[in-house]
Amino acid sequence: MISVEEAQRLVVEQASSLPPRAVPLEESLGLILAEAVASDVDSPPHDKAMVDGYAIRTADLANGAARLAIIEEVMAGDVPLRMLGRGEATRIMTGSPIPTGCDAVVMFERTDVVDVAGDALGTVVIRDAPMRPGANILKQGCSMRRGDVALEAGCEIRPIEIGLLAEMGRSTVETMPRPRVAILSTGNELVPPEQVPARGQIRNSNGPLLAAAVARAGGIAEPLGICRDESPALRGVISAGLRSNILVLSGGVSAGVLDLVPAVLSELGVRCVFHKVRLKPGKPLWFGVYCAGAANCLVFGLPGNPVSSLVCFELFVRPVMARLAGRMDIFPPRKQALLSRAFTHRGDRPTYHPAHLADDEGGVHVDPLKWHGSADLRALAAANALIHFASGDRQWMPGESLDVLPL
Amino acid sequence: MISVEEAQRLVVEQASSLPPRAVPLEESLGLILAEAVASDVDSPPHDKAMVDGYAIRTADLANGAARLAIIEEVMAGDVPLRMLGRGEATRIMTGSPIPTGCDAVVMFERTDVVDVAGDALGTVVIRDAPMRPGANILKQGCSMRRGDVALEAGCEIRPIEIGLLAEMGRSTVETMPRPRVAILSTGNELVPPEQVPARGQIRNSNGPLLAAAVARAGGIAEPLGICRDESPALRGVISAGLRSNILVLSGGVSAGVLDLVPAVLSELGVRCVFHKVRLKPGKPLWFGVYCAGAANCLVFGLPGNPVSSLVCFELFVRPVMARLAGRMDIFPPRKQALLSRAFTHRGDRPTYHPAHLADDEGGVHVDPLKWHGSADLRALAAANALIHFASGDRQWMPGESLDVLPL
Repeated sequence: MISVEEAQRLVVEQASSLPPRAVPLEESLGLILAEAVASDVDSPPHDKAMVDGYAIRTADLANGAARLAIIEEVMAGDVPLRMLGRGEATRIMTGSPIPTGCDAVVMFERTDVVDVAGDALGTVVIRDAPMRPGANILKQGCSMRRGDVALEAGCEIRPIEIGLLAEMGRSTVETMPRPRVAILSTGNELVPPEQVPARGQIRNSNGPLLAAAVARAGGIAEPLGICRDESPALRGVISAGLRSNILVLSGGVSAGVLDLVPAVLSELGVRCVFHKVRLKPGKPLWFGVYCAGAANCLVFGLPGNPVSSLVCFELFVRPVMARLAGRMDIFPPRKQALLSRAFTHRGDRPTYHPAHLADDEGGVHVDPLKWHGSADLRALAAANALIHFASGDRQWMPGESLDVLPL
Repeated sequence: MISVEEAQRLVVEQASSLPPRAVPLEESLGLILAEAVASDVDSPPHDKAMVDGYAIRTADLANGAARLAIIEEVMAGDVPLRMLGRGEATRIMTGSPIPTGCDAVVMFERTDVVDVAGDALGTVVIRDAPMRPGANILKQGCSMRRGDVALEAGCEIRPIEIGLLAEMGRSTVETMPRPRVAILSTGNELVPPEQVPARGQIRNSNGPLLAAAVARAGGIAEPLGICRDESPALRGVISAGLRSNILVLSGGVSAGVLDLVPAVLSELGVRCVFHKVRLKPGKPLWFGVYCAGAANCLVFGLPGNPVSSLVCFELFVRPVMARLAGRMDIFPPRKQALLSRAFTHRGDRPTYHPAHLADDEGGVHVDPLKWHGSADLRALAAANALIHFASGDRQWMPGESLDVLPL
């Protein structure tokens, strides 16, 4: 049986980025940018006032004081029409272009206006405003010059990048698309959530869980519902799922007599890359690839129990989704945490045990939760992490450092 | 001028949770659960096999070995019809109910089947399987009993909770709705991203930036576009925006002559709670409340520069959105980080300075980025945090610990 690390390597080897696609700017949040974007403007587009006040010539100040004739008023969106001469000032708003001749802006708070009569704009009296040339002026292009590549391909588009793309004139942008992930739950024992299970039946919790996990990981979930363990039905619905970028099946991959899924996948031309991983929960994991021309579909057969499904999703499916979406850092960051209480781990497979992680005084602590195994989803409602225990029986002591995978 | 903390207190004081609403399970991801949910089933629903193998009676084992007649085969979704007698075994799949009389399950790997002839199921030979009663059996209800409240109101609905809700039979669920946030950019200088700005004009980067920030914070952005600084137009579009849970305006709240927004808001019956906060960037922040019967609208007038807008969004709008959505921890967690290089902060207001945070050997380090002030959005593309510098001039040394706000 292969290790988790080897299985991750084999999975990622089969995954390559999807072809880029242009999307409207407002739909690009969270995607990876697929082009380098250069600005078509200087930012700021002109030497501009950084405060509301008066554009002046510092040569007119004597000990930070002056009386200057107001020759013009420039509002936001307007441009100054008059050049500043000696003894003159222009009233100006934050962001406005400064007039020719001006070399500083004095903020309103240090000024008074007098001598306003008729149509005259009056005189501004400046007090206590010693200024160097350039004060309160932002130079054209100081943040970005026309032609500058301000965003490189490969960066994640956050709200900041959306603002910057808008500033650079982009209303559409080339991005890596969200992977489409088909989800199929298999098993004769499954009924939908709205149905009361008869004896021997259970509700399909895996389907909704995996669809939500796909959405949270930035993918488009394409739910295919429940399919019974019967070859003709499985063939039809699996064929449909192979049109997605990823097909996630749950159930039907352990050693049981009715586990028909691997056989049906093979019939349909899905090549098995591996089956079974040294992992608990999640040992029966099946992984294969379907090639149809240029379009590949990566196929995961996850075990039927919901906790196994979730662990396999986090370790294998989510990193592959990240790679398809053009991300570089595709494995979830691991943390180190200190065990909060003594805990004995037994078993011949590395185990991912539900746990609660808390950042308290004295560091990051992790508490292993009481857990009844791979079908016990309820224990996970209190979990925000999985502790990774190495294989082998061992008693762990409080304060020992362990690897954890935040959920 | 009030402090950031006082302003946050005043803002949160005006915010209360929105009325809960039933949504289909598949639309509940990321929302806060608004009801306690009890299970209508035991989990597991029956004593069940934890492995694929043979249901046996441990009394039949001698030194972990036995030859037992196979009396029945139980597939997933089936129920055993025959009770186990002495010397008998039932072939059974993981998850299946165990037959009456059985007290352990031996996994396939420790068995061989012999004597199969005609319709006979044959005999199972068990080797090297010393077992205690209860081995490989999960007891009915051990993870959850019918009537147990497995999820409390107030918890966040993650993929795990969606799986658990499905298991408990919920296809719809009471949740706290996403807040609807109207976004309006004001200013005569603004043009949409697809337009090339004329002299004195700039593109509206704030609108797209804030819409994306709202979406990322789990809200529904309702973009109202650009409005010129003219009272009649502002009145119309602001009236429309007051029908949302939150109205975010950007621009029009500093001291400029054309800053008509506060006047129009007042005319429309929006009560000002505060105007201006001791903060850089973001000083001109305006906040008020509009009451129309039971429905309130919280109104934020953000400064027109994109970095100021973003900082005010993170400090004030996002926590209020979290409160409306029913969350308890509404302020973004602050981190401590070690300054990576000497840095001089000057200014009489607490400042949020764009920075890059990295978790490297020796701890979490933060690097203040070169930044040209509140209009310089480009500097933020490299930022993943804001450093909080206290007011006053001070030279900070490498290795000093500072408060940071991750972005």
